[in-house]
Amino acid sequence: MENKILLVHGSGGRLAHELVERNFVKALANPLLAKLDDSAVFDLSGRLAFTTDSYVVSPIFFPGGDIGKLAVCGTVNDLAMSGAKPLYLSLAFIIEEGLAQSELDQIVASIKKAAKEAGVKVITGDTKVVNRGSADKLFINTAGIGIIPEGVNISGSNAKAGDRIILSGTIGDHGIAVLSQREGLSFSTHLKSDLAPLGKLVTEMLAASSNIHCLRDPTRGGLATTLNELATQSKVGIRIEEEKIPLREEVLGACEMLGLDPLYIANEGKLVAIVPAEDADGVLEATRGNRYGKEAAIIGEVTTKHPGRVVMKTSLGTSRIIDMLAGDPLPRIC
Amino acid sequence: MENKILLVHGSGGRLAHELVERNFVKALANPLLAKLDDSAVFDLSGRLAFTTDSYVVSPIFFPGGDIGKLAVCGTVNDLAMSGAKPLYLSLAFIIEEGLAQSELDQIVASIKKAAKEAGVKVITGDTKVVNRGSADKLFINTAGIGIIPEGVNISGSNAKAGDRIILSGTIGDHGIAVLSQREGLSFSTHLKSDLAPLGKLVTEMLAASSNIHCLRDPTRGGLATTLNELATQSKVGIRIEEEKIPLREEVLGACEMLGLDPLYIANEGKLVAIVPAEDADGVLEATRGNRYGKEAAIIGEVTTKHPGRVVMKTSLGTSRIIDMLAGDPLPRIC
Repeated sequence: MENKILLVHGSGGRLAHELVERNFVKALANPLLAKLDDSAVFDLSGRLAFTTDSYVVSPIFFPGGDIGKLAVCGTVNDLAMSGAKPLYLSLAFIIEEGLAQSELDQIVASIKKAAKEAGVKVITGDTKVVNRGSADKLFINTAGIGIIPEGVNISGSNAKAGDRIILSGTIGDHGIAVLSQREGLSFSTHLKSDLAPLGKLVTEMLAASSNIHCLRDPTRGGLATTLNELATQSKVGIRIEEEKIPLREEVLGACEMLGLDPLYIANEGKLVAIVPAEDADGVLEATRGNRYGKEAAIIGEVTTKHPGRVVMKTSLGTSRIIDMLAGDPLPRIC
Repeated sequence: MENKILLVHGSGGRLAHELVERNFVKALANPLLAKLDDSAVFDLSGRLAFTTDSYVVSPIFFPGGDIGKLAVCGTVNDLAMSGAKPLYLSLAFIIEEGLAQSELDQIVASIKKAAKEAGVKVITGDTKVVNRGSADKLFINTAGIGIIPEGVNISGSNAKAGDRIILSGTIGDHGIAVLSQREGLSFSTHLKSDLAPLGKLVTEMLAASSNIHCLRDPTRGGLATTLNELATQSKVGIRIEEEKIPLREEVLGACEMLGLDPLYIANEGKLVAIVPAEDADGVLEATRGNRYGKEAAIIGEVTTKHPGRVVMKTSLGTSRIIDMLAGDPLPRIC
C-alpha cells in the first residue's frame, strides 16, 4: 500500500516531527533550518526586500515543473524584480490528507533543485494537514528575503517617458502548458512551462546598467496586466508593437483554439524591464546573454501620451487599447 | 444579495486589484504596503529572526478570536520566542470561492487590530482564490521578520540542568475554545481562546533577565510536546509538578468529558521560559506584571537525569513520563 500523508502528520506531535525531519530538514539540509527553533536567526544588514506568494496551481505537476519549483521560482522572481539578490525562503505546506508520500518527495526534490539553482536557502517552514476535501492536494506558501545592492532603485513607479520596454522572451508558455494538463481539456502539445529563477538574469542586467527603472514578471494576468500596472504606478503611457512580442507557434495555436489572448496568459520565467533609452541596447544584450533571456526583445516605449494606458500597434498597423485583465480565463495557474 | 468572493478576485486582473486595494491596502494602510511593488523594501541591520506559519483553523471564528487575529499573533509569537522584537509581516490569503465579503472584512479588521497591538506592520501580501470545494473557507499564511536585541541568545538547545521552568498561565484554553464551536460537538462554555501577541511580555521578561535560555509557545501538541522538544534539543531531562500547572475549571471539565489531556491541548497566548535558577523569581515577577502573564508559575526544573525525557510528579505523588503527542486529538486547531 502506498504511503499517504495523514491528518496526524499535521498535529505538531511525534509523526509531525518525523515528517518534517525526513522530508524537509534532511532534504533541504542547512544549519539554519536544522536548528528547528521557532524562528531562523541570521545576521543581515542593508536594504532588504521581503515578499510572499501562495501557490495553488492545478494540477500540481505540469510540463516543465511542479508546484514545488513554482513556489521557489515565483518568490525568488518577486525578490529579483525589486533588484534584490534572493537569500532566504520560508516554506509552508498545506497538505490535503491522502496526498501520496511519493508525490511530496518529488515536490521536495524539485524545491531543493530550484533553491540550489536560485542560490537561496530554505531556513524556516511549517506543515499543516487538513481533512480530505478541505484543500486540493497541496498548497504551498513561500516568503522570501533578499538584499538590494547599493545604487539600485527599482520600482513600478519609476518609468519615464522615452524609456524602452524590454521583454525577456516568449509569452504565454506557462499558462498554456498548465492548461494542457487540465482534466477535461487536455490537448497535445510539446510546450513546457517557462518556469525559471530569474535572479542571475537580473544581476547580469544590472551589471549592464544599474539605472534600470522598473522590473516586473508578467505572471497572473499576463503581459497586458503587468504593463497596465506599470503605466498606472508610473503615471505614464506605454506603447508596444504586436510584431515585436516573442510568441511560440504552439502558444498562438492553443490560444486560437481556446479563444484566449496570449497577452493575458501567465508566465513564470519572463520579465519586463523598463530602461532609459541610452541603456536599452546594453541591457538587451546582457539579457540575451543569459539562458533565460535568449529571445529578449525591445517591444515598445514609455510615452507622455495617454498616462495610465497601454496601447498596442497591431500587426495590421492599427492601434488597440490593451486593458488590464478583467475576467479570469485561467484560474489556479500559479 | 450578499457580496461574495469570486474566482475572478484571484485572477491578478482588475477585480483582484480592486479587492487588494479595498480590503488590504486601505485597511492595513502603511507606506511600504501601499507601494504595491513585487517586494516590500526597507532598511534593517542586525541579528534578524524569520519565521512562517499557515493557519487553517476551523471554524474561522471562535470565542476570543478568529483566523485573522491568529495569523498575526501566531507568527508574532514565533518571532518573540526567539527573543526578537517583531517588526514586519507578510500576509497571504487562500480564499475558497463564495466566502462572504463581510467575513473577509471582519477578519481584515481583526488583523489590523492585532497588528496594532503587536506593533508590527503588514508590508507585503498575496491573494489567491480557489474554486468551491478546493479549500475550506479561508487559509492564511503569515511570515514575519524581527530583530534580536544585542546580548540576547535564546534557543531550544540552551537549557541547562538546574534551570527553572516558567509557564506564563493556564493551559488548554485555545484548543477547548475552538473545539467548543465544532459542528456536531458544540458544548456550552464561557471559555475564550487565550490568543494574544506576546512580544511585549517577552520584552519585559528580557528586561528582568537577558539571560533567559529558552522560550517557546506551546501551540499544536500543547505543553507536553513543547517540553519534549526542549528536552530533546537541549539534551536534558525536564521535571514538572502537576499541581503547579495553572488550569481553568472549564478546561479540566471539558477535557474530562471529551477524554482529552490538557497537557496536549493547544495554546495561543502562553509561553514556556527556561531560565537560570538565580533569575527565576525576577523573571516570574516580570511575567506576572504583564496582562498576559498574570497567572504565571514556576512549574518545574531542568535535570541531568533522563536526558530527552519529561517526567511529571502527579497530584497523587507518583511520577509519570510525559511523551510527545502521538495521535492528533484536535486537527485544525490553528
